[in-house]
Amino acid sequence: MAKPFDLALYLVTDPRLVAARGLLATVDAAVKGGATIVQLRDPQAHGRMLVEQARALKALLAPLGIPLIINDRVDVAVAAEADGVHLGQDDMAPGDARALLGPGRILGLSVGNPAEHASSDLSVVDYLGVGPVKATGTKADAGAAIGTAGVTAIRALTRLPIVGIGGIDAGLASDVIRAGADGVAVVSAICAAPDPETAARALKAAITAAR
Amino acid sequence: MAKPFDLALYLVTDPRLVAARGLLATVDAAVKGGATIVQLRDPQAHGRMLVEQARALKALLAPLGIPLIINDRVDVAVAAEADGVHLGQDDMAPGDARALLGPGRILGLSVGNPAEHASSDLSVVDYLGVGPVKATGTKADAGAAIGTAGVTAIRALTRLPIVGIGGIDAGLASDVIRAGADGVAVVSAICAAPDPETAARALKAAITAAR
Repeated sequence: MAKPFDLALYLVTDPRLVAARGLLATVDAAVKGGATIVQLRDPQAHGRMLVEQARALKALLAPLGIPLIINDRVDVAVAAEADGVHLGQDDMAPGDARALLGPGRILGLSVGNPAEHASSDLSVVDYLGVGPVKATGTKADAGAAIGTAGVTAIRALTRLPIVGIGGIDAGLASDVIRAGADGVAVVSAICAAPDPETAARALKAAITAAR
Repeated sequence: MAKPFDLALYLVTDPRLVAARGLLATVDAAVKGGATIVQLRDPQAHGRMLVEQARALKALLAPLGIPLIINDRVDVAVAAEADGVHLGQDDMAPGDARALLGPGRILGLSVGNPAEHASSDLSVVDYLGVGPVKATGTKADAGAAIGTAGVTAIRALTRLPIVGIGGIDAGLASDVIRAGADGVAVVSAICAAPDPETAARALKAAITAAR
């Protein structure tokens, strides 16, 4: 059983979008504004840099009680003592990842549609990332946009916590929650905002109001 | 202590070069021709495919007593029960990898020059990959060619087994061994050969004669 976590406002980092401000400064601002969970995502980065970044983020987030999730790399998550891993459908199978992570870490899985939901081993998964809700430029290999109806379709299939992702801003966030998501994951809406803390606060207010 | 291994003829796979013949068929031919150790390397591949390929290679190689090494991904190596991991200087630090791998698996590290040798934690490493001996087209981020003199320079610094890598064919293989390497790693010389088994046999003969 993984420790409790809150998907309400789930920040996914993007190396290009945080480059000017810096990764740590962006994440720090986001959690000050109300982000409840943070995923380090950089598919192009080598392992050594990922471990270093993960350790720095862990040092920032652990005292605040904010879980740190690592995208894809189970080895990086274990080396940096992160709180969990988020897997795409092309990443290591959930059962293989769980075997390496042990029972206490958080394991998330992306599902884009009911077929992916049906074919996935969800017995070892703690939450689902559902999307893309809207088409987005920050993830080149994302599937077709599924809209809030797609969130509702997955909601009907599982009791696992769900976080909607893909092109979500403060306006859409309320709709995603009302469609059945427990939380909203954002990349650009915080990482590319002129003021990430203010952006996070606006998103969090919309999410809290809709829950 | 890792189990004994023989670096004599070290095959590193390349997904583009094995595409026509197939990964398993290429590796099968190489070990029939005398390859003594095999590294699965595909920096662009996602985790799920790497685990699948590693498991298939492990099933092929384990009955032959040929160790399977995974490039970079410690998590993939553990999930597929591979025999070890090979790290570049940008990959996870050797100490972090060893902590995940445990004491029994083989850990290799690339060093391109004495400075990289000096700055690396070799206390947890089982062998060194030294190169590129010659400039090569199969690894875009390889450093400057170091020649056989570069192999000799590293040989003088360590008692760890050394495998030379980078642009090595049967002609150069003897020189690399005489320069102090325990073995020769090849990509194109086997993967791009019209007959990988014959190519491996010629390389192995040159290496055996020079050792």
